[in-house]
Amino acid sequence: MKYTVITGASSGIGYETALAFASRGKNLIIVARRKDELEKLKQEIEQINPNLEVVIRTTDLSVSKNVYELYEDLKNYQIETWINNAGFGNFASVADQNLNKIESMLHVNIEALTIFSSLYARDYSKVEGTQLINVSSAGGYRILESSVTYCATKFYVSAFTEGLAQELKAQGANMQAKVLAPASTETEFAKRAFDLNDFSLEGVVPKYHTAKEMAEFMLELYDSEKVLGIVNGSTYEFELKDPIFPYAAIKRS
Amino acid sequence: MKYTVITGASSGIGYETALAFASRGKNLIIVARRKDELEKLKQEIEQINPNLEVVIRTTDLSVSKNVYELYEDLKNYQIETWINNAGFGNFASVADQNLNKIESMLHVNIEALTIFSSLYARDYSKVEGTQLINVSSAGGYRILESSVTYCATKFYVSAFTEGLAQELKAQGANMQAKVLAPASTETEFAKRAFDLNDFSLEGVVPKYHTAKEMAEFMLELYDSEKVLGIVNGSTYEFELKDPIFPYAAIKRS
Repeated sequence: MKYTVITGASSGIGYETALAFASRGKNLIIVARRKDELEKLKQEIEQINPNLEVVIRTTDLSVSKNVYELYEDLKNYQIETWINNAGFGNFASVADQNLNKIESMLHVNIEALTIFSSLYARDYSKVEGTQLINVSSAGGYRILESSVTYCATKFYVSAFTEGLAQELKAQGANMQAKVLAPASTETEFAKRAFDLNDFSLEGVVPKYHTAKEMAEFMLELYDSEKVLGIVNGSTYEFELKDPIFPYAAIKRS
Repeated sequence: MKYTVITGASSGIGYETALAFASRGKNLIIVARRKDELEKLKQEIEQINPNLEVVIRTTDLSVSKNVYELYEDLKNYQIETWINNAGFGNFASVADQNLNKIESMLHVNIEALTIFSSLYARDYSKVEGTQLINVSSAGGYRILESSVTYCATKFYVSAFTEGLAQELKAQGANMQAKVLAPASTETEFAKRAFDLNDFSLEGVVPKYHTAKEMAEFMLELYDSEKVLGIVNGSTYEFELKDPIFPYAAIKRS
């Protein structure tokens, strides 16, 4: 029995991605801090397809010990797809930013993603049909004012994942690594970035996608042979692309 | 009395940069883990100019508590320039990399640099003549095979620092933020990246700079109004440039 792991599945793009993969008949391992939300998601999935297995794991990925423990805990599952979706933003100038929140952001957006990606590539890169999908952001290709540190974490995710994708291809590995780069999406993301209890994108950004639309783009990326699925910053259309950042292979004599 | 802080000053570009700033008559706060090397550097500086103050601080920047403690400990010094030079690389595929080393690398290359940059900008952005210089890499603009995670940390540094530079300009701040992006340099860097005791770039890369040359480039960047000093990957010439990554200001109505 094969499973799809989705981190940050308690809301937003992660939640909708779980539903989208369930509609494809995929068994799921859903990960987040909030148990109630994962239970609700599990119930929704059971309504879509009662034959699917849904495994719930609650943990805080800002602590690296938890990251290793979760991976170890999933050793007995056969993991077909691993989606590192957990992550959050922060809206403040660098000089004004709350460094406790920034450290948590670095741990979740960068460190947890790197540990999971490395361990998953180590164990599964030779397994046919496996995919690692890391969720970056349009801000991982273009720096946004007052979100500089968040964007820098997403530049890391984009470069790391594009580089891994190229490395896997050069090795003739079976695993594909891919980057999803959403732009503004109607989720709890903005609420957390702005430290607000209530927030709507309506009227704040010219255009945005719903989490459900982004989950559809996730499936498009999953089905394609391309490395990058990105929301165009001008047209807001979803585009499947080859890697954007320059990449240099080592010259072999 | 004003000071220039240089992290990772015990060898390589950091060591030579300390000598270069001493030749400009700058008092120094030199930071690294190895006390003996810093004492040696201090003696060398005293020979260049016995009137300079040289403050030694030994600490391990892979532990974030140490980062905050060091910054707090320097509160009584007036810091004119802060150079985040500490950092190291790793040469391995993502699937094969040693995750303990990778975690330390993330902490030094990304987390310590972010904490120092944020605190320094918070306290000094309105002080005339102040500069923050973060050492990235040519690999912070182009991903190199088998150094994917290292390059991703340097993409972070480049995006973070370019973004901060733009943010400071938009705020009309007095502080300038700059990125130095060296390519292959003859230092202990390769030794640590390859986990070797002895290593020379001779014959391994087509061309490289000495640490002393890179310290001269550091001074050129320090003297210029440009944000980026980068070694051209083809010609190996040093170029002063405007930011490379796209940047989007928030539209204000």
